[in-house]
Amino acid sequence: MSAQKLLAEGLGTAFLLIGVVGSGIMAQNLADGNIALALLANAIATGCILYSLITTLGPVSGAHFNPAVTLAFALRGDFAWKDAPAYVGVQVAGGILGVWASHIMFDLPVLQASATMHRTGGAQWFSEVIATFGLLFVIFGGLKSRAEAVPTLVALYITGAYWYTSSTSFANPAVTIARGFSDTFAGIYPGHIFMFIVMQIIGVGVAHLILPRLFPPKD
Amino acid sequence: MSAQKLLAEGLGTAFLLIGVVGSGIMAQNLADGNIALALLANAIATGCILYSLITTLGPVSGAHFNPAVTLAFALRGDFAWKDAPAYVGVQVAGGILGVWASHIMFDLPVLQASATMHRTGGAQWFSEVIATFGLLFVIFGGLKSRAEAVPTLVALYITGAYWYTSSTSFANPAVTIARGFSDTFAGIYPGHIFMFIVMQIIGVGVAHLILPRLFPPKD
Amino acid sequence: MSAQKLLAEGLGTAFLLIGVVGSGIMAQNLADGNIALALLANAIATGCILYSLITTLGPVSGAHFNPAVTLAFALRGDFAWKDAPAYVGVQVAGGILGVWASHIMFDLPVLQASATMHRTGGAQWFSEVIATFGLLFVIFGGLKSRAEAVPTLVALYITGAYWYTSSTSFANPAVTIARGFSDTFAGIYPGHIFMFIVMQIIGVGVAHLILPRLFPPKD
Amino acid sequence: MSAQKLLAEGLGTAFLLIGVVGSGIMAQNLADGNIALALLANAIATGCILYSLITTLGPVSGAHFNPAVTLAFALRGDFAWKDAPAYVGVQVAGGILGVWASHIMFDLPVLQASATMHRTGGAQWFSEVIATFGLLFVIFGGLKSRAEAVPTLVALYITGAYWYTSSTSFANPAVTIARGFSDTFAGIYPGHIFMFIVMQIIGVGVAHLILPRLFPPKD
Repeated sequence: MSAQKLLAEGLGTAFLLIGVVGSGIMAQNLADGNIALALLANAIATGCILYSLITTLGPVSGAHFNPAVTLAFALRGDFAWKDAPAYVGVQVAGGILGVWASHIMFDLPVLQASATMHRTGGAQWFSEVIATFGLLFVIFGGLKSRAEAVPTLVALYITGAYWYTSSTSFANPAVTIARGFSDTFAGIYPGHIFMFIVMQIIGVGVAHLILPRLFPPKD
Repeated sequence: MSAQKLLAEGLGTAFLLIGVVGSGIMAQNLADGNIALALLANAIATGCILYSLITTLGPVSGAHFNPAVTLAFALRGDFAWKDAPAYVGVQVAGGILGVWASHIMFDLPVLQASATMHRTGGAQWFSEVIATFGLLFVIFGGLKSRAEAVPTLVALYITGAYWYTSSTSFANPAVTIARGFSDTFAGIYPGHIFMFIVMQIIGVGVAHLILPRLFPPKD
Repeated sequence: MSAQKLLAEGLGTAFLLIGVVGSGIMAQNLADGNIALALLANAIATGCILYSLITTLGPVSGAHFNPAVTLAFALRGDFAWKDAPAYVGVQVAGGILGVWASHIMFDLPVLQASATMHRTGGAQWFSEVIATFGLLFVIFGGLKSRAEAVPTLVALYITGAYWYTSSTSFANPAVTIARGFSDTFAGIYPGHIFMFIVMQIIGVGVAHLILPRLFPPKD
Repeated sequence: MSAQKLLAEGLGTAFLLIGVVGSGIMAQNLADGNIALALLANAIATGCILYSLITTLGPVSGAHFNPAVTLAFALRGDFAWKDAPAYVGVQVAGGILGVWASHIMFDLPVLQASATMHRTGGAQWFSEVIATFGLLFVIFGGLKSRAEAVPTLVALYITGAYWYTSSTSFANPAVTIARGFSDTFAGIYPGHIFMFIVMQIIGVGVAHLILPRLFPPKD
C-alpha cells in the first residue's frame, strides 16, 4: 500500500466532504428557508466535486473515497482485503478533516455534533440500500461498458439520487460518519449513523448478488 | 431473449421510474408550492438517471426502457418483433415496481392511483407526439452521427423537454402506465393514460416516416 | 443543395425555437413571477436542445440553424455563397413553424406578435454584438481545437450567455425573427428586430476580423 | 511570446470576467433578493464560460487566464519565467476590460469601485487558500490523468466551489483585481483585494508542495 494511494484517498474524501458540507452551509445561509433550492445547490456542488475527484484521483488510488466501494471491490476480488483497513481508515479520517475544514471556511466552531434528527426510520433505511446498490451499479456497469465515463456516472448518479431517495443518498459509511460531526444542513445525528451504515452494507450485499448477472466479468 | 437482457430492461425501467417519481415526491415535499423549482429538480434528476442507465445498460439490452423505442427499433428492422412482447412486459412491470419502490422510500402507501387530472387535452396530446418524435430523433440521429453520445443526448433531450412540451414529455408508454400508479407530483390520472399512449405511437409513426430522410441507413 | 440538408436546417431551427419559446412559456407559467428561476429553466432547456440538435444534425447540414453562422462560414470560404439564401430561408421558416408548434403545445393562439418592449437600446445592442462574436468564437475555436466538442461548446456558451448579456443572447437572426411571432416570455417586439439583426451582423464582422488571428486556418 | 498567445490570454480573461460579472448583474437584477438563486445562476454561467474558453484557447495559450496558474506552471518548469510578466499583464488588463464591457452591456457606469465589504476575514482567507489549491489540483491532476478533461474539470470545480467555499472561490488574482472595479453582485472592496491575492499565492505554494506527491511527473 503506497503512501501516494493513502494520500489520494484521504485528500479525496476530505474534498468530497468539503463539497457536501461546505455547499450545504452556503446553501442554507443563502436560501432563506427555501429547502428545495438549498438541496439543488447542494446536489449540483456534490456532483461537481465528485467528477473532479474521480477523474483526477481514479488512476492514483481508484478513487473509492467510500468504504462501501472498497468493500465491494474486495468482494469482487479486485482489491486486496489486507489493504482495506488502511483505505477505510484514511477515508474516515479524511472525511472528518474535510468537515472541519468546511467549518473553518465558514467561520463555525470546528468541533460539532449534529442534532439533525430526521435521518432515520424504515423509509430512509430502505433508501440507503437502494442508493448504495445504485452507486455500485453505475460503477461496475460503467467499468464494463465505458470506463472513462465512470466519473460522470458517479457524479450524475449522486446528483440525481439526492432527489429520488428520501435519505438524499449518503451511500457511503465514511461520509455518514463525517457528517455526524457537523450540525449543519448536511448533518446526521450520531445515534442514527449506525443503521445507515448497516443499510449501506446490505446494499453492497445486494449488489454483489445481482450485478454479476447484469455485468458478467470479462473473460 | 436472454434473461440478462430482460433483467436489464426491467431493472433499468424500475430505476428510471425511481428517478422520475422519487425526485418528484422530494421536490414537491421541499418546494413549498414553487412548482417551477420542483420541475427543475425533477427534470435534472431524470436526466441524471437516464444518462447513468443508458451508459451502463446500453451494451447489455440496448437500454430501451420504453415500448415506443422498442417499437421504433423493430420498425427499422433493428430489433426482432418476436422479442418485443417480453421487452414491453418487463418494461411495464419494472416501471410499476420502480414506482412502488419510490413510495416505500418516501414512506407513502405503496398502492396508489393518480388523481392528477390536468394531463389531458389536445395541447398535451400534440406535445406527446412531438416529444416522442424528438426522442427518436435524438436516438437515431445520435446512433448515426456519434453513437457514444446517445446517453447524453437522451438525458439532455428529456431534461429540456420537461420544459418545452406542455405534457413534460412522458414519451414512453411504460412510464405513462407506471405514473398512473402514483398520486404524487409525477402522477397521471389512469383514465388519461390511453390517449397519451396513442399519441406516443403516432410519434413513432411520424418518426418512422421522416427520420430515414434525415439519417439514411448506412450502406 | 440537397433536400436532406434543407430539411435538417428547417427541422433543427424549428426544434431550437420549440426549445426556446416552449420552455419560456412553461417557465413563466410555473415560476409565479420569479423571473430568475424562469430564465434559469429557459437557459438550461435551450442548452439541452442545442446540444441534441448540433450533435445529431451537424454531420447532415453543419447544424447552423442561424443565418449569422451561415454568413460567417461563407465569409471564411467554408460554405458556398450560392447556397446561403436557401439555408437562410429554411432557417427563418423553420423557426416560425417552431414558434407556432410551441403555441399549439401550450394551447395558445397560433398567430401572435410580441408586445415585449424592453429588448432594445444601446446596452442590449452592444450585448448582441458581443453575444454573436462569442458564439462564432466558440464555433471556430472549437472546430480548430476539438471539433467533437462543438455541440457542447455552443450549448454551454448559450446557456451561460443568457445570463451574462443583457439581451439574453439572441445571436441569431432567424431566432430573432421567429421570436417576434410570440407574445410570451421569449418574445421581442417586431419593431425591435431590425436593430438586433444589424448588431448580430456587426458581430459576424468583428469575428471575421479577430478570429483568424486567434485561430489561424490550418495549413 | 507571440502576440497570438497574449491576445488569447487577454480576450479569454475578458470573457471570463464577462461571464462572472455579467451573470452576477443579471442574476441580482432578476432574483428579487433571492441570493441563493442568484449565486446558482452565477455559478452555472461561470462554469459554462470556463468550459468554452479553456476548450477553445487551451491549444493557443494554455488558457491560464489566471496569474496563480501561470505562477504554478512556472514553478513546475512548464512555463518560462521570462514570459510570466506579459501573461499576468494581459490577464489583469483583459479582466478589467471584461468588467467594463459587462457594465456597458447592462447600461451601468463603466468606471466603478466595489463597496462590497464582506469579502474579508480569516474564514474567507482560508477559503481562498483551499480554493486555489483545489484549482491547481484539478488542473495538474487532470493533465496527468486525462488531459482532454481539463476544461470540464476546471468548469465543474469552480461551479461547485462557488458553494463550498465561503469566498465563492475567486482563486485568481486577475479576477480578484478586476472584480474590485465593479460595484455589483460579484464585486470586492479594493482594500480587501490584497489579502485575497496573498492567500491565492499561499494556495499555489501548498499545491507546489503536495501535488508532486499525488501526481508525480511522468518519466
